[in-house]
Amino acid sequence: MENQNKEEEEEQIVTPWEVAAEKGGKIDYDKLIDKFGCQRLDQSLIDRVAALTRRSPHVFLRRGVFFAHRDFSDVLDAYERGEKFYLYTGRGPSSEALHLGHLVPFMFTKYLQDAFKVPLVIQLTDDEKCMWKNLTVEESQRLARENAKDIIACGFDVSRTFIFSDFDYVGGSFYKNMVRIAKCVTYNKVVGIFGFSGEDHIGKVSFPPVQAAPSFPSSFPHLFSGKDSLRCLIPCAIDQDPYFRMTRDVAPRLGYHKPALIESLFFPALQGETGKMSASDPNSAIYVTDSAKDIKNKVNRYAFSGGQDSIENHRKYGANLEVDIPIKYLGFFLEDDAELEYIRTEYGAGRMLTGEVKKRLIEVLTELVERHRRARAAVTDEMVDAFMAVRPLPNMFS
Amino acid sequence: MENQNKEEEEEQIVTPWEVAAEKGGKIDYDKLIDKFGCQRLDQSLIDRVAALTRRSPHVFLRRGVFFAHRDFSDVLDAYERGEKFYLYTGRGPSSEALHLGHLVPFMFTKYLQDAFKVPLVIQLTDDEKCMWKNLTVEESQRLARENAKDIIACGFDVSRTFIFSDFDYVGGSFYKNMVRIAKCVTYNKVVGIFGFSGEDHIGKVSFPPVQAAPSFPSSFPHLFSGKDSLRCLIPCAIDQDPYFRMTRDVAPRLGYHKPALIESLFFPALQGETGKMSASDPNSAIYVTDSAKDIKNKVNRYAFSGGQDSIENHRKYGANLEVDIPIKYLGFFLEDDAELEYIRTEYGAGRMLTGEVKKRLIEVLTELVERHRRARAAVTDEMVDAFMAVRPLPNMFS
Repeated sequence: MENQNKEEEEEQIVTPWEVAAEKGGKIDYDKLIDKFGCQRLDQSLIDRVAALTRRSPHVFLRRGVFFAHRDFSDVLDAYERGEKFYLYTGRGPSSEALHLGHLVPFMFTKYLQDAFKVPLVIQLTDDEKCMWKNLTVEESQRLARENAKDIIACGFDVSRTFIFSDFDYVGGSFYKNMVRIAKCVTYNKVVGIFGFSGEDHIGKVSFPPVQAAPSFPSSFPHLFSGKDSLRCLIPCAIDQDPYFRMTRDVAPRLGYHKPALIESLFFPALQGETGKMSASDPNSAIYVTDSAKDIKNKVNRYAFSGGQDSIENHRKYGANLEVDIPIKYLGFFLEDDAELEYIRTEYGAGRMLTGEVKKRLIEVLTELVERHRRARAAVTDEMVDAFMAVRPLPNMFS
Repeated sequence: MENQNKEEEEEQIVTPWEVAAEKGGKIDYDKLIDKFGCQRLDQSLIDRVAALTRRSPHVFLRRGVFFAHRDFSDVLDAYERGEKFYLYTGRGPSSEALHLGHLVPFMFTKYLQDAFKVPLVIQLTDDEKCMWKNLTVEESQRLARENAKDIIACGFDVSRTFIFSDFDYVGGSFYKNMVRIAKCVTYNKVVGIFGFSGEDHIGKVSFPPVQAAPSFPSSFPHLFSGKDSLRCLIPCAIDQDPYFRMTRDVAPRLGYHKPALIESLFFPALQGETGKMSASDPNSAIYVTDSAKDIKNKVNRYAFSGGQDSIENHRKYGANLEVDIPIKYLGFFLEDDAELEYIRTEYGAGRMLTGEVKKRLIEVLTELVERHRRARAAVTDEMVDAFMAVRPLPNMFS
């Protein structure tokens, strides 16, 4: 991606492999929406979700974590007419343990599955990670299965969920769709979208159709046989948008609906909101395997504070909530709107200190991580096998 | 392939998609051997084959139809030590009916299978043809199955032969090898080998690993489980060499033997030996579906003659055997060495006329095509299913 980087050295970069804000700044999501050509998810859409699902919208909707979309309103229109859809999300299994940012799309997808009562396919791109991270096939597969346990621990309904790894599942109808998609995309096009160079291996060039294929129902004949016009909704972080721009270009040529997208902000690093968290720095993120002590230590030592440098100044000027990481994290994970608003007001006015806010965040995260750990410990190999079995889903649309 | 063509406008071009001699000339196979870096198959190797298999070498060996190789002597060395190997060949199913040129590698492969008593995998690249020829997936699959019948009609032993179509079989261990191979090959490398351009679709860029994967025994766990060091020998026309040069580069990095190759000349068009036959001109080739009348008509009307323009001159100067197509075709298909030598001598001396040679060729081809037609008519759907079933081969190495 050398060339692209050179041109955009001064600009923010968002690709599926790299997220970097403009020098010293934050990601400019408005610019990103303009550049990518997606739409902002406005209040009227959130209200429609609430009305259609007869439940309070998820905290990630209420607080703008999922902030952009493509054709989500079409999905809701169709749903209103009685047409169901299916959800598709995924993960590249590059590490043993997930961090909180990895959980965000899965927590939200679980909410969508429960609220709309629709089937869900989850792709584990072990082939991608094998190619990008130089892992062996076997290690990528092992990580995929370990990650599946964390995903299952998010509470998905086995009667409506199919989890698959590419190394297990690519073939048959899925491979046919990969070929159909690949025929529609030139090399120049993927270079434009993903910034590959001639020195990149052809595995990278071959991969985009693998991530595109689950957007089409015929890739899953054991689930959606005879339902070629079923719509697909993809919840994901906005860095995945390039894959699905490509997919949406191709869809009409293959006779399918374009997949709809609902896209999230990046979950910020403890050190501040300049991009996504870095896998190479374990202190940049809270992992689902962190102990209570780890969490306390990381939040207290590394969470970037918007508080002032002395108590005196803090009481006088209040905290800068725009850059404060504890407030950002509470925005993701503190469910109580009233309490969050109270903390924002008091902290912003300087009446609450950074230490107090961090203390509350530590409680919230410790509880979240503990809950996840208990849920993951309860995931048996048999459960993983059940989620990953190629079989019809009994409760798919009920 | 625009750029490559421009550079080599005056030279011969041999790629898996294009075979063209230097302007007005014939394919220069010595130049090709030099350019590709393979070896000439010399008499001492043919003698070794005869000794090891205790049978007369196939007419295609005796007459230099299979004329080049890579590491074939290593395969024979290993065989002599008691190590078996497996054969791999294939076909891109782009048309309904095969012509005689298509039969050449299969006739030779059947001989190798019988002589060495080794297993054989035959790849039908329906995915490739779907991408290159703009056929639908379904049409490519239909052609693959129709072509399988013609291949089976060549007499392969079902207890030692696995025929597969990519759309059916890609997945699992085969897909894992595709990914392992793709990781080792840069885009620049495939451009150098195959001459793709940026406007080519990424399906083309993704395909070389699909044709490479059958060269490694672990792509067939139902056949070769635990036999990762089994050698592979690939009989093919020399235009397929680029795929296997790439495969041979990659093999040691994946811990496999490099596949060995035994490579044939191109089967010449009726109109003369300037390249391969053209699918777009039905009069350039004899098809296995041609009637006796078609064959007679095509040979008499279109087969390029090296005879002189008047009987008088012919008696005086004799025929130019170097350019005479009936003699070339008899070289492929007239089994009797003595009779062939007799015809060459008499025709070359002008004592035999073109009409007489063509008459003999018509007899030979009519019998060959009739025999093929009868064999193909006897191929049932159950037999196709048996050859294409993913199952262990009972008689693999006996």
